[in-house]
Amino acid sequence: MIAFYNGEFLPIEKISISPFDRGFLFADGVYEALRTYNKKLFMLQKHLERLKYSLEQINLNFSEFNQLENIIYRCAELNSLDTDFSTYIQITRGVSFPRTHYYSNQIKPNLFVFVSPLKNRGREINEGVSVTLEQDVRWSRCDIKSIALLPNVLANHKAISEGHYEAVLFRDNFITEGSHTNFFAVKNDSIITAPLSNYILNGVTRSIIFNLCEENNIQIIEEYILLDEIFTYDEFFLTGTTTEITPVVKIGNRMVGDGKPGKLTRKIQKLFYEFVRKH
Amino acid sequence: MIAFYNGEFLPIEKISISPFDRGFLFADGVYEALRTYNKKLFMLQKHLERLKYSLEQINLNFSEFNQLENIIYRCAELNSLDTDFSTYIQITRGVSFPRTHYYSNQIKPNLFVFVSPLKNRGREINEGVSVTLEQDVRWSRCDIKSIALLPNVLANHKAISEGHYEAVLFRDNFITEGSHTNFFAVKNDSIITAPLSNYILNGVTRSIIFNLCEENNIQIIEEYILLDEIFTYDEFFLTGTTTEITPVVKIGNRMVGDGKPGKLTRKIQKLFYEFVRKH
Repeated sequence: MIAFYNGEFLPIEKISISPFDRGFLFADGVYEALRTYNKKLFMLQKHLERLKYSLEQINLNFSEFNQLENIIYRCAELNSLDTDFSTYIQITRGVSFPRTHYYSNQIKPNLFVFVSPLKNRGREINEGVSVTLEQDVRWSRCDIKSIALLPNVLANHKAISEGHYEAVLFRDNFITEGSHTNFFAVKNDSIITAPLSNYILNGVTRSIIFNLCEENNIQIIEEYILLDEIFTYDEFFLTGTTTEITPVVKIGNRMVGDGKPGKLTRKIQKLFYEFVRKH
Repeated sequence: MIAFYNGEFLPIEKISISPFDRGFLFADGVYEALRTYNKKLFMLQKHLERLKYSLEQINLNFSEFNQLENIIYRCAELNSLDTDFSTYIQITRGVSFPRTHYYSNQIKPNLFVFVSPLKNRGREINEGVSVTLEQDVRWSRCDIKSIALLPNVLANHKAISEGHYEAVLFRDNFITEGSHTNFFAVKNDSIITAPLSNYILNGVTRSIIFNLCEENNIQIIEEYILLDEIFTYDEFFLTGTTTEITPVVKIGNRMVGDGKPGKLTRKIQKLFYEFVRKH
């Protein structure tokens, strides 16, 4: 596999990260994950805007946004990817020595980009998945897409180890989002999801759903889904760049409805793929 | 500089971390920092116990604890360090591909160790330092010494940029600890510090102080120092492996007492160095 690191396209095993990269020592960096449809990067501008936001929030100076699109397509070409693919962009603050929490503004950020073929998720999309509910122990700046993902790793790993697809997280009685997805519920023909705040990521797919609902007169409400009322909702789904719109048909060991993707979830999926075709 | 990485002692620039090391992509790892006194590692067993605890909490299998002492002394030797030094041990979950939050239990952890000469902190220890108060936005498992340190970096960087030595963190009205230190107050001849919980690190120096207080009939109380009562306390100090017992003489732009290290803080410093000499 060929990936990009600081100006060079290299076989992955030739890419050498310094142990004093602040990404390795302090999780001092941010990332984005995108995908293509019809071999074209989907919602690139939205992802770049969010990347800028994350960088600003952690005061990391990076300016080579204009090069990212070319880097990604060139990576795909060098790996002879002739199908749709996902891509990952990570920017860390750079290498500094000695190890101190404090950093100099003079250090040069490190850019790492790779592409991967997308795996087929037809089954999850069509049949839905099972999720587990876990306490949200993450920091309170989940609006920043940082690489400090250990809590997400622990929650997702536990979920998958127990046979689920994703961990859906709650703070007190409020459901925030999944470990790498946004979480939606349906009740009385309205769609409900957590409001934007420092506790959730401003998902690109999430924002598309808001637009689709407005255009199609589907009521969508930003309010917390309540943990202790979770089984009073009619349908659930997860969203994300590679997750797309994935129905949730089981929570813990309890079936949602008849265990099949809900009607409004299906409608949102349909509207989403129509939107994809037009973009 | 020679450091240790996965079985080899190498010049730092020859150490190559894979971009798929989960430490680099997910902050999926833990660390310890120790120091020597009289060229002997101080409280090694306590640090190794805490390292084991951190590893267990994130379900990371590592068993080569017995080798660490030799690795550290050999590093010091190879760098011709003939003074006291600090050392850093980092264990990440290892390299895995493709990038998924979920990990296999089969991957081999990566061990990185380096040593550095200690810088002279006589001035901070003798004259005290200034701290700023910042909101604690960290995750709620601060008892794990993980490398997901971005919030600590942001808080500490802000503090230092504004001319302080450390950021002291609060959740609601409760002071937890510093960005890389524990925080203590003195009131009516009693010492007060946050109780052990998931919100603070179980500091090795913190635990020494508890023992010293017991042995010397100094009352020490585990309770939260309250943010809105901060200026009703008489003295403050920070503790940590390299911080030792550092008096706090200024909080924000407000002097503590007469701006000099407090009497009980001085006594704790004295007892601490006596303890050090005996160990």
